[in-house]
Amino acid sequence: MHAERMDRVRAAMAAQGIDVLLLSVGPDLPWLVGYEAMPLERLTMLVLPREGEATLVVPRLEAPRVVERPDVFALRPWEEAEDPVAAVAALAGPASVVAVGDRTWGGFVLDLQGVMPGGARWVRASAVTGPLRARKDPEEVAALRVAAEAADRVAAQLQGGEVPLRGRTEAQVSADIGQRLLDEGHHRVNFAIVAAGAHAASPHHEPGEAVIEAGQVVLCDFGGTWPTPSGAGYCSDITRCVSLGPPPPEVADAYDALRAAQAASVAAADVGTACEAVDAAARDPLVAAGYGDRFIHRTGHGIGVEEHEDPYIVAGNAAALEAGHAFSVEPGIYTPGAWGLRLEDIVVATDAGPLALNRADHSLVLVDA
Amino acid sequence: MHAERMDRVRAAMAAQGIDVLLLSVGPDLPWLVGYEAMPLERLTMLVLPREGEATLVVPRLEAPRVVERPDVFALRPWEEAEDPVAAVAALAGPASVVAVGDRTWGGFVLDLQGVMPGGARWVRASAVTGPLRARKDPEEVAALRVAAEAADRVAAQLQGGEVPLRGRTEAQVSADIGQRLLDEGHHRVNFAIVAAGAHAASPHHEPGEAVIEAGQVVLCDFGGTWPTPSGAGYCSDITRCVSLGPPPPEVADAYDALRAAQAASVAAADVGTACEAVDAAARDPLVAAGYGDRFIHRTGHGIGVEEHEDPYIVAGNAAALEAGHAFSVEPGIYTPGAWGLRLEDIVVATDAGPLALNRADHSLVLVDA
Repeated sequence: MHAERMDRVRAAMAAQGIDVLLLSVGPDLPWLVGYEAMPLERLTMLVLPREGEATLVVPRLEAPRVVERPDVFALRPWEEAEDPVAAVAALAGPASVVAVGDRTWGGFVLDLQGVMPGGARWVRASAVTGPLRARKDPEEVAALRVAAEAADRVAAQLQGGEVPLRGRTEAQVSADIGQRLLDEGHHRVNFAIVAAGAHAASPHHEPGEAVIEAGQVVLCDFGGTWPTPSGAGYCSDITRCVSLGPPPPEVADAYDALRAAQAASVAAADVGTACEAVDAAARDPLVAAGYGDRFIHRTGHGIGVEEHEDPYIVAGNAAALEAGHAFSVEPGIYTPGAWGLRLEDIVVATDAGPLALNRADHSLVLVDA
Repeated sequence: MHAERMDRVRAAMAAQGIDVLLLSVGPDLPWLVGYEAMPLERLTMLVLPREGEATLVVPRLEAPRVVERPDVFALRPWEEAEDPVAAVAALAGPASVVAVGDRTWGGFVLDLQGVMPGGARWVRASAVTGPLRARKDPEEVAALRVAAEAADRVAAQLQGGEVPLRGRTEAQVSADIGQRLLDEGHHRVNFAIVAAGAHAASPHHEPGEAVIEAGQVVLCDFGGTWPTPSGAGYCSDITRCVSLGPPPPEVADAYDALRAAQAASVAAADVGTACEAVDAAARDPLVAAGYGDRFIHRTGHGIGVEEHEDPYIVAGNAAALEAGHAFSVEPGIYTPGAWGLRLEDIVVATDAGPLALNRADHSLVLVDA
């Protein structure tokens, strides 16, 4: 699998005239070779010339963690007193177009620019890897599906009243949901937003010491990473709101509009449809219903090894969905100082139509918890 | 406090001829303004011209998370369809020397280089912030101390046999230690290495499904982040080894040598001493005792808002320790396929001599757990 991905990457490099690909921290490296670099000041970097052997430059004390794959890459451990940037530059050779991983620490990019040939053109590695990673193969879709099913089980526990809410802080509930993600098989919790009442009007609210009260609507947006034998993990991401009592009419009305808009957007996600059209399928009815200025973010983001990746479901993205594209559909309505609502599923575009991976109840469930 | 730090940063920029400082994800931003950027594809960046107002460019949906400090920075939220890179470039103006945060995603550095004036010189922000952040003020030392005391309490629980070991997997013990770090007051677990038997020969071993057995030596290296009202958190980091039964003579001998070397290195950490001399104070006796080729890493790293930061206690670093420098002293001895040992404290250089913040028992404690 990794050898096959390497071939596709080399072909894309050739098509774009890229001489060398440099990958460090971030999702490209585990996707390509099954190894995740530690985010440390000690540089780990895969050097992949368009032609010639790939080499993983790695701190000697990380080397024991690497599962060697001699058919895919050579290993070049560096010692504590060595300069890994010089080692990378030597392996890269006289490149005139260099692609570097989007999440590589900027300091290393500057260091490399200082020692590699002047006048080289530097581009984001995602120009090469983004379109390849966006098209999930069947094993990747299967991993996203089991991750989504695990997230659904946690959502069902929330909706079933098994997650105590009233009288606990948002932070406590967030920790509880995180533990449930692990219990259901994720190997890492990426986030667990719990936003009660007016806090839900901030889409990325940080769960804090606020105590959840009767009558509040609680927005929960959570996800983790599901391990696979390939060495790369795949992400889940789901949002459900629950209500600790009958919601006020304006909230119930807004939720009805939101649910319909979300479903319309999912239904629009056919192969060949532009990403911006999928965004519009959620946005247009909300604008028509008067919620336009309260839907303050894009409709969704791609998902895979990375929580957010190509394709982005956003106005201005005219790229067409392809079979295997996996992404969130998550419109929201936010009323500052009062309440917020969001509804999110992960969807895969397939030749047989849009496939929603999340099946947890889509209604604003009343819970007594 | 933030205004005072801003003044020191501007003075350092002037001394180094830097026109604008650009800070995104990573520890510089919370240290300087109390806000931590989310590691997302949506750019958050502080633009600090050497003269003129600082501005925090932030995605609109993150803006509610920002604690506004109008005396320190202006807020510039950007909308989903806007280009934040262009917004940063406009605020930065015609800079000829640009400093950018070391951990800024490389993709954003390339994007900024593409739209900011050609021919500008780009340098790491740590050239400005590193020396300033390395010298901890009394409040920062106090935060490191309470974090170290909390880590010590967890180490004491480990050494006191309160953390079950035998029959559990490394991963389970790692999760247990992580939970204890939170219970003792950390707000985030950064890592909890648990390496049993031969696994400890890999300094950054990832705790896995291996079941811990009677008779093994178990290396535990763990730390978290301690919250402070300033908005920046400070890190703990400690390593202790425990033995599930009397260790073999070669392990006991190695531990004695390691403990003496670690104590000698701590004792050497006076203001004015070169970092490389502190490294040598641990390394020389281990080399003399025949362990030189098994001590495969530097002696330590600075610590503060970041787990690893300036100053690095490593051969080749001739910089002298200054009052307020805080760093780890953590020599190790690793025998591949057999066992590994490491002993680590956090130490602050003060005018009254080296101050070791960790006080947990430094011996190879026998535990029955």
